[in-house]
Amino acid sequence: MAFTTNATIASFGGKLFKLSHQSTTTGTPMAVNLYLPPQALANPTSPTKVPVLIYLSGLTCTPENCSEKGFFQHRASQVGLAVVYPDTSPRGLNLPGETASWDFGAGAGFYVDATRAPWSAGYRMESYVARELPAALFGDPEYGRYLDGARVSITGHSMGGHGALTLYLKNEGLYKSVSAFAPIANPVNCPWGQKAFAGYFGEEDKEEWKRHDATELVKGWKGKDLKALVDVGTADNFYKQGQLLPENFEKAAKEAGVTGLTVRYQEGYDHSYYFMATFSDEHVDHAAKHLGLL
Amino acid sequence: MAFTTNATIASFGGKLFKLSHQSTTTGTPMAVNLYLPPQALANPTSPTKVPVLIYLSGLTCTPENCSEKGFFQHRASQVGLAVVYPDTSPRGLNLPGETASWDFGAGAGFYVDATRAPWSAGYRMESYVARELPAALFGDPEYGRYLDGARVSITGHSMGGHGALTLYLKNEGLYKSVSAFAPIANPVNCPWGQKAFAGYFGEEDKEEWKRHDATELVKGWKGKDLKALVDVGTADNFYKQGQLLPENFEKAAKEAGVTGLTVRYQEGYDHSYYFMATFSDEHVDHAAKHLGLL
Repeated sequence: MAFTTNATIASFGGKLFKLSHQSTTTGTPMAVNLYLPPQALANPTSPTKVPVLIYLSGLTCTPENCSEKGFFQHRASQVGLAVVYPDTSPRGLNLPGETASWDFGAGAGFYVDATRAPWSAGYRMESYVARELPAALFGDPEYGRYLDGARVSITGHSMGGHGALTLYLKNEGLYKSVSAFAPIANPVNCPWGQKAFAGYFGEEDKEEWKRHDATELVKGWKGKDLKALVDVGTADNFYKQGQLLPENFEKAAKEAGVTGLTVRYQEGYDHSYYFMATFSDEHVDHAAKHLGLL
Repeated sequence: MAFTTNATIASFGGKLFKLSHQSTTTGTPMAVNLYLPPQALANPTSPTKVPVLIYLSGLTCTPENCSEKGFFQHRASQVGLAVVYPDTSPRGLNLPGETASWDFGAGAGFYVDATRAPWSAGYRMESYVARELPAALFGDPEYGRYLDGARVSITGHSMGGHGALTLYLKNEGLYKSVSAFAPIANPVNCPWGQKAFAGYFGEEDKEEWKRHDATELVKGWKGKDLKALVDVGTADNFYKQGQLLPENFEKAAKEAGVTGLTVRYQEGYDHSYYFMATFSDEHVDHAAKHLGLL
């Protein structure tokens, strides 16, 4: 389905497009922001296709938060990388309890396809982010001509870090690299993940839970070099409360003989966009390197 | 009065402090954010005093908006500059009509000392920003030791651009340079300024109005080199609606023989923080140059 352009905003020499489209996966209109760097826009009649970084947001966020506060456009404009900011859930399905919690339902889709009613109706953010959205964007007559759908990397924050790591591990070859800020790295063992997975998959089927857990997935990962960068702030209260558990992910990767994982503990940084803005240049560079831009 | 530290947030290698203090000028508690770059914090027992950039926000804003979305910290952390983000008005005076408009009263103090009741009671943001706040910060036992009160520049956005330009022109020598994003550069001739000045000074005393108008002030400016950088986006709706009038300011400066004013019209940029974030590095550099850092 074609995209509606709701706003076009100049940013760091490129343009941020606030888009929406009707999703067949979620059954709702979906908002998404797309940043095109100046390199893509330099020759509008015959554009240079640029590689793409998909950024997955955390709990409660929309495409706006990171577009405004993450600072990814700063470095993306320099290296020539497009950035896609999807939403974090369907909006407006009006399911019972959909907006009752900030960490489940609206704004908290967890990048999984729910199997349990009523959520299975439209809470299918895994299929939306990994398949429908890129197919729609890369095939779009207006925006697809700027985007190289064969060169895509993925990143994300918190719940979106979980999304980035799991979609990367589940879809080998789909993304050229992965990075994450403060990811929920072992959701089956933390309160946020347990609440979400119980809701979306039911309490019983713990094997299904594991299929959406980065720490479980990395144990069976078939690749060699993970091409993964993870940053976690040591003053992050959610880290301290055991919601993120990056050590479990590191340990599982190490025990599985997986190489190419860098986890950095950033002294004094919290869970906020101030943390991400500080290191987003480096995450863009990580993707750019694996996308052939650096 | 001492500052209360409500939050300390790591940002670009330095720290952002969310402060509040009781102001004798406004008669209210005032919020202010202070960014200290890593250079200031490198040696806590005997800190290096760094110069200071005061950033004045636009209509409706608090100290948070630009701290989160302006990205001044990015370049300030590199050159070694502190940034101070004051609020835009007193809060909580409970004057009649104080919160009725988004462009007058709360969030819209216009960096003037009101002469008309009831606003004269506490809407004295000129005295607060130019005198009380710097005196309090630079003399503060905790934060003053990081700040070089003899090396201060000023900048701002929209209403804050008006504030920066007028405080700079009124207080020769107090600031080493000035810059502005999309400033309300001739408020006596635009709807925002006319509404605010009628409210704060009364309809009649047009001479008082002119004492707070950058275009009027620059006509009588006694200095030689203005050391001023102004950016305006050509897609800024408020610019197109005649709220900013930067051409009037340019013309007045030129006719008065004032040199050292650079006004840039940035193609396609709007009035938002996306615009500011794109050029804030350059505004930090402008200040840094005049503060002896570059």
